[in-house]
Amino acid sequence: MKKYCFGVDVGGTTVKMGLFSTEGELFDKWEIKTRTENGGEAVLPDIVDAIFGKMEERGIRKEDVEGVGVGVPAPVNEQGIIKDSANIGWGYKEVKREIEELLGGIRAEIGNDANVAALGEMWLGAGKGCSDMIMVTLGTGVGGGVITHGKVIVGANGAGGEIGHLCVNSEETERCGCGKKGCLEQYASATGIARLAGKYLEHYDGQTLLSSKSISAKTVFDAVKEGDKVAVEIAEKFGRYLGCALANLAVITDPAVIVIGGGVSKAGPVLLPFIEKPFRESAFFANQDTKFVLATLGNDAGICGAARLIIE
Amino acid sequence: MKKYCFGVDVGGTTVKMGLFSTEGELFDKWEIKTRTENGGEAVLPDIVDAIFGKMEERGIRKEDVEGVGVGVPAPVNEQGIIKDSANIGWGYKEVKREIEELLGGIRAEIGNDANVAALGEMWLGAGKGCSDMIMVTLGTGVGGGVITHGKVIVGANGAGGEIGHLCVNSEETERCGCGKKGCLEQYASATGIARLAGKYLEHYDGQTLLSSKSISAKTVFDAVKEGDKVAVEIAEKFGRYLGCALANLAVITDPAVIVIGGGVSKAGPVLLPFIEKPFRESAFFANQDTKFVLATLGNDAGICGAARLIIE
Repeated sequence: MKKYCFGVDVGGTTVKMGLFSTEGELFDKWEIKTRTENGGEAVLPDIVDAIFGKMEERGIRKEDVEGVGVGVPAPVNEQGIIKDSANIGWGYKEVKREIEELLGGIRAEIGNDANVAALGEMWLGAGKGCSDMIMVTLGTGVGGGVITHGKVIVGANGAGGEIGHLCVNSEETERCGCGKKGCLEQYASATGIARLAGKYLEHYDGQTLLSSKSISAKTVFDAVKEGDKVAVEIAEKFGRYLGCALANLAVITDPAVIVIGGGVSKAGPVLLPFIEKPFRESAFFANQDTKFVLATLGNDAGICGAARLIIE
Repeated sequence: MKKYCFGVDVGGTTVKMGLFSTEGELFDKWEIKTRTENGGEAVLPDIVDAIFGKMEERGIRKEDVEGVGVGVPAPVNEQGIIKDSANIGWGYKEVKREIEELLGGIRAEIGNDANVAALGEMWLGAGKGCSDMIMVTLGTGVGGGVITHGKVIVGANGAGGEIGHLCVNSEETERCGCGKKGCLEQYASATGIARLAGKYLEHYDGQTLLSSKSISAKTVFDAVKEGDKVAVEIAEKFGRYLGCALANLAVITDPAVIVIGGGVSKAGPVLLPFIEKPFRESAFFANQDTKFVLATLGNDAGICGAARLIIE
């Protein structure tokens, strides 16, 4: 019986790596640098060297390794091919085929990093035991992963689960980075919350702890914790966009649990009621029992989910 | 090797049944009456009698049957349990367990009828060969099925794929049958199209082939075919609600193809551009290649998809 698997989370600066048992025990984790120069040609060889090094260090044989899962910051199709991943330096790349050649007999599975983080939370984190789950990552952008039947929705082009690009406001005049107008990301990302706050403060000269000079998602939720009314109104606006979008998503995937992660979620439990209330108000009757929880794995979600790609 | 499977589509009036090869060849199809009296207690025994009768007629032994798939007009969870199906007379019912007991050794799988029809179109119809597909059924209501990784999204409560209850208009004042306001079903079902037309004609006294006395989805699309400008405007309104809703859905499931079925789709190819145009205008860049096609199996989609439940 194969006992081990590796989870690899490729980012633009570092590659996070983990050695797991196939049952989900994390034995070891470490990082290497992402060498993006020359079209990122060293990235996969560096990963494989690090894996072989770890195997030697611990006396693990190839036949004891179930496989290596890799999360990458790009859409990935079912064949493990990406079309472009600018922050790694990669263009079109057959990631699965290339890394399997380097691994010489060990199987690899490739997934999109946001999707893979969702899988991590399902396997070992806030969604443990759920095969129907949505994870929303509220960071610089809004990402996430949608899980049904215990698998992440990948889609025909590897572009499934792009939660941040749900249209939530057909009246919006400013454009999202993707070129569309009214994307969820424009209101529910860290940047989006700061934008909502900035717009509010432009037309407000009453009392508030918020100052337009140092506005961020963090300062907004810090002020919410102090009971600042303006901050609460901004948080309500953010929550309405996100909660209603998630209610529409629940109509389609009927999740048992919705996991909120990413930098914005560091605000803690204070965040959840702002999302849950509008969700309950606009959700379909069959989805009223959906639970909301905060992500628990933090930066380890990527390596956990990548390892989980190997265990179907 | 097991050669045969049965597909059963349970409706409020008749039960449609089909005998298939596991490769997808339809050998025989027939109907029996749905006896809904006494809490629908005869429905499952009647189905099993009909299956055993067909097996005897054709000299098929139990060991040659891979299984029996059943589509029912209710949400069904992964255990094949329904909570309520009023038009069959059933309340809480463990459909899978009960029918497997009656079948004495033949496996059964149960699915929601709209989801199952989607699976039918994927297996033998308009979505043949696609493992990422959305089917929208435009009938009295709006139903459908969302397929990813070749499987229908069922969800934690069996309520996945309720496309008709996506909220598409937060300004709506009238209520949908589900209790919410602004559901897609209020604009894109046969009833919804007639409602849009009725509202238009209330405030219009110019020339049109449409008459408020005999308004229906059919008369609207018949008038579209004659070039009637009012009918075209109504169709555009319908298409905008549906196309934008499908664009949002595509952001999540990234389908290769979207199949349009149900009574309204009998209008034929004239229907598609009304949906496609707003879809392309509001879709995420990664989903621009999604194809739109009309369903091809008609009333057989249910038995085909039910049989497909057996072949994973």
